[in-house]
Amino acid sequence: MKILDTKSFSVPGFKVWGIHCGIKKTDKKDLAILYSEREAAVAGVFTKNRVKAASVLLDAARVKSGKGQAIVANSGCANACTGKRGMADARETAEIAAKELGVRPDSVYVASTGVIGEFLPMQKIATGISTASGLLSASGWEQAAEAIMTTDIYPKRAVVQEEIGGKTITVAGIAKGSGMIHPNMATMLCFIVTDAEVSPAMLKKTLLEATERSFNNITVDGDTSTNDMVLCMANGAAGNKRPALGSKDAKKFQACVEAVAVSLARQVVRDGEGATKFVELAVRNAKNPLEAKRAAMAVAKSSLVKTAIFGEDANWGRIMAALGNAGIEMDETRTDIFIGKAKLVEKGLGQGKQAEREAALALKQREVHISIDLHKGKSDATVWTCDMSYEYIKINAAYRN
Amino acid sequence: MKILDTKSFSVPGFKVWGIHCGIKKTDKKDLAILYSEREAAVAGVFTKNRVKAASVLLDAARVKSGKGQAIVANSGCANACTGKRGMADARETAEIAAKELGVRPDSVYVASTGVIGEFLPMQKIATGISTASGLLSASGWEQAAEAIMTTDIYPKRAVVQEEIGGKTITVAGIAKGSGMIHPNMATMLCFIVTDAEVSPAMLKKTLLEATERSFNNITVDGDTSTNDMVLCMANGAAGNKRPALGSKDAKKFQACVEAVAVSLARQVVRDGEGATKFVELAVRNAKNPLEAKRAAMAVAKSSLVKTAIFGEDANWGRIMAALGNAGIEMDETRTDIFIGKAKLVEKGLGQGKQAEREAALALKQREVHISIDLHKGKSDATVWTCDMSYEYIKINAAYRN
Repeated sequence: MKILDTKSFSVPGFKVWGIHCGIKKTDKKDLAILYSEREAAVAGVFTKNRVKAASVLLDAARVKSGKGQAIVANSGCANACTGKRGMADARETAEIAAKELGVRPDSVYVASTGVIGEFLPMQKIATGISTASGLLSASGWEQAAEAIMTTDIYPKRAVVQEEIGGKTITVAGIAKGSGMIHPNMATMLCFIVTDAEVSPAMLKKTLLEATERSFNNITVDGDTSTNDMVLCMANGAAGNKRPALGSKDAKKFQACVEAVAVSLARQVVRDGEGATKFVELAVRNAKNPLEAKRAAMAVAKSSLVKTAIFGEDANWGRIMAALGNAGIEMDETRTDIFIGKAKLVEKGLGQGKQAEREAALALKQREVHISIDLHKGKSDATVWTCDMSYEYIKINAAYRN
Repeated sequence: MKILDTKSFSVPGFKVWGIHCGIKKTDKKDLAILYSEREAAVAGVFTKNRVKAASVLLDAARVKSGKGQAIVANSGCANACTGKRGMADARETAEIAAKELGVRPDSVYVASTGVIGEFLPMQKIATGISTASGLLSASGWEQAAEAIMTTDIYPKRAVVQEEIGGKTITVAGIAKGSGMIHPNMATMLCFIVTDAEVSPAMLKKTLLEATERSFNNITVDGDTSTNDMVLCMANGAAGNKRPALGSKDAKKFQACVEAVAVSLARQVVRDGEGATKFVELAVRNAKNPLEAKRAAMAVAKSSLVKTAIFGEDANWGRIMAALGNAGIEMDETRTDIFIGKAKLVEKGLGQGKQAEREAALALKQREVHISIDLHKGKSDATVWTCDMSYEYIKINAAYRN
């Protein structure tokens, strides 16, 4: 697999663009279109929140066909909690795009992110879709990535290439951050496209697994926004032979989608609202995989742990207490905790001032590694999070201003 | 029931005091003793965290006797994650106090709060217990309340009186805050004493119910610190006839303990780390009591809701999305949301700018009322929380400095 430079790339058969159409109060971009010149296989993963945005309801129904040709995404307005009018607006957005692009309305997917409870400004959307359609370009990824941003500081892109069945295939993706890593609801959007020829069934399986190993390691299962979605389109422009399920090529394809998803997930964390540090948190030797992940997530989402990391304080008691609340089998007298390479805790007991000093040095870095050994079984899990700073409060206290 | 002024009060048969013995780096008080002149009935509620401080393990064993005569509490050191030495130190603390007070060692309960992973300075504790024992006073409640504080800004006290069986009984309590309202681990300590004569069995039942309706409405079930505890001592000095289970007097007693517990719980919220606003959050017409509480807690603990309240932003979409993640049966098209008296959302839809303006005014107050009607059943729940401010980050980033 070859990891490409994200500054300038294209994926055969896809054209994309992003513009400002007036949904946001500022002059920032707020509408993106991703278009495949031919009908593509489509797969999607959607929020588990009981309150679902119109875009989620519409796309979840459409993706059952396994097919599609375009995605229209807007930022600045979530079109969630907007009832029948919101649903009609989502449908109309797809219809307008379908006309502009000359495709079937039910082959257009929509995505929204922004403030909940407000209606889409349909006139602006219509004008925006028309403008963006005219500007679609094979190299418009930066514009598209910018147009789906909300509180993100920078656009998130990833692209890889691989040889499959004698052909070079490209997998590329853009994402917008879920603000904080453990949001109760901040939206995460991700669109991945590839020119590989794969069956809708394989695409679905591939995307589910990739999501589990990427985005689901940066957010608590089920604890997602009204609008979260990951959509994946595969248009077959590479002309490769369809890989068979379980084949070597299928695995290569899986690795590509996963690499793009993991890269985007890590970018989302790095750009977490107010984040000053990227934190990789590994749990080793848990009783089973579920408990490994649960333990890692419990520590990663603890406000007290996150503020201590911001304060560069090796306060391991907060890590231990978060583990005690994780709902897993653990025994403090078996538990070891490392920050960086410093073994801060062995068998539940602090290892003294020298270890604390080493850990404090590790905490001064931009990237922090925390590792916990439960000595309870053989399962590991790694999750990614960020620290919690003053800036997080500022961003979220003034979000709608 | 008469609610007394907390500035100066006493409870017959109890003497208490608080001093600085040197556990804290500052000159703030850090050791309290609560002593009953006669053996008392004792009940306790303890943390559900799997990682339990030595004090919790010791007291949970001792409380099975239903009897006791003193509590020694220290702040500045949690004596948690301290292994066998920590357990020995907790026992020794009780033994030292028993000698000073002339009571049986197993009638002394201990409580600790502060940094995890450090050992108690036993020499200082011994000297402190000796000094505090000599100062014990019927009117030492302010000193005792101050000595259990950590990040609390003010001491928390409550006291009520009631006629039971022709006698006036007093119920009084002190507490220290769990910092933030939904802590992953910040410690909450509460000690309630009364001169009422009640059986250990009734005291236990009364305390469990009172805790459920007070402290368990400000913290997620099971999501507690390594050191949390509520202890209650009843010494019978009032000379009333023991109320029978289910009697009118039993209910009056229950109401007294509950009133003290609710008052202390609300004081804990009001003094939440960095809190600028006290928030009362009511959920109406949930499917059942469990779902009512779960819904209320899901909203109350959302960082995004709490930061929006700090920013005085009536961003109801965050409330709706938190409900969608609460794991309850809800239907957004039936859900109403009020902030203050403003009906911000009816049947899932925003009610426009005028309602938002009214809600914004309500959010400017020091005390904010949020009410959610799920229209799914007949169960209600009320919980208390606070907003999340810059100050919260500051306190928790620099906690051990």
